[in-house]
Amino acid sequence: MAQQERSARTRAAILRAGAEVFAELGFAGASVSKITRRANLTLGALYFHFESKEHLAREIVRAQPELVMSPAAAGLQGAVDITLEWATRLTQDPLLLAGARLVMDQEYFVRSEEGDSYRQWAGVILPFLHEAHENGELRPEVDVLTLAQLMVNASTGAQMNSQLDSGRRDLPDRIRQMWSLLLPLIATEECAGRVMEALGRREGDSPTIDGNQA
Amino acid sequence: MAQQERSARTRAAILRAGAEVFAELGFAGASVSKITRRANLTLGALYFHFESKEHLAREIVRAQPELVMSPAAAGLQGAVDITLEWATRLTQDPLLLAGARLVMDQEYFVRSEEGDSYRQWAGVILPFLHEAHENGELRPEVDVLTLAQLMVNASTGAQMNSQLDSGRRDLPDRIRQMWSLLLPLIATEECAGRVMEALGRREGDSPTIDGNQA
Repeated sequence: MAQQERSARTRAAILRAGAEVFAELGFAGASVSKITRRANLTLGALYFHFESKEHLAREIVRAQPELVMSPAAAGLQGAVDITLEWATRLTQDPLLLAGARLVMDQEYFVRSEEGDSYRQWAGVILPFLHEAHENGELRPEVDVLTLAQLMVNASTGAQMNSQLDSGRRDLPDRIRQMWSLLLPLIATEECAGRVMEALGRREGDSPTIDGNQA
Repeated sequence: MAQQERSARTRAAILRAGAEVFAELGFAGASVSKITRRANLTLGALYFHFESKEHLAREIVRAQPELVMSPAAAGLQGAVDITLEWATRLTQDPLLLAGARLVMDQEYFVRSEEGDSYRQWAGVILPFLHEAHENGELRPEVDVLTLAQLMVNASTGAQMNSQLDSGRRDLPDRIRQMWSLLLPLIATEECAGRVMEALGRREGDSPTIDGNQA
């Protein structure tokens, strides 16, 4: 039992050190020896848990959705909350940051759907949009799959451009702006109004409790 | 005069070789010596035209919009045509391909607005969207600047994900799909119908002349 615990802790340490090194140097610049040095572990410990640098990178990308808390809200509000939670926590979580960096290097390590950042995130958003569709929150002409792809593509692009402009500090603002354009276009008037209001409340970074709650 | 011509030809050869090497190796992997070797020129010739690898990369990004033909159409149709022209020609033009690759490495060489890929493309699309707004083609609630940013972000993301899935061969399809979602949402019914029809005509890669022209 103690050994299992130790093993899990070592694995977590490798993931974290890998994330830090990937985030700083990209996939090509990172090496297993740099990662083990950062984690203060032996190469043997790394290779016990991960077959190669490729496998480690793939696991970091695969684990992304688990790093963003599942939103309390359902439907469209849930989809909005996921993107904002991701945008807000990105700069604080080395694993999310590594995922954002590795998205640019995926050609070097993705060989299967597992570990493909685009499909990962589209898969997270899609159930919420399906739910929104079923609940009649979306305008009938909105294709749910295309909307999920647009969300992921636009968030990826926003992340890259925000990195350049502000070291990703203005990413939550960019994501909020995207939603304030899209919500009135994709959602019914009632739903758009409700989600826009919540978006306004989040602005001051007080995402949860607010006296004005509808 | 002959010398000026020779100089212009050398500059173009450097840009092309630089584009090829950046597209293959990214900014970090490229070097001035690899570029001059590719162009069959001396280091001196390169440094006569470009101060550094950074300046060469910046110039390739700056020149992107000039590489995409100015569309014959105005307004929203013009904006759509630019994105499709870019998506279609990307895989054939080493300079466009280099621009798409360098967008991921901009933190290494962009130090000013000039050469910032995001602002370059937003600046190209924006006048067409302003025109669309003035001509009453857009729904009144659509914010033109946010829409331009969404276009650029979503196209950047689509390009990256298309690279992974198909070596960018399916990029025109992805861009068409994005527009077929957005057009009915952002445009008036008349304009959306007209531009959607043109989008359908382009599908078979017969972008200009068609017997069915409306």
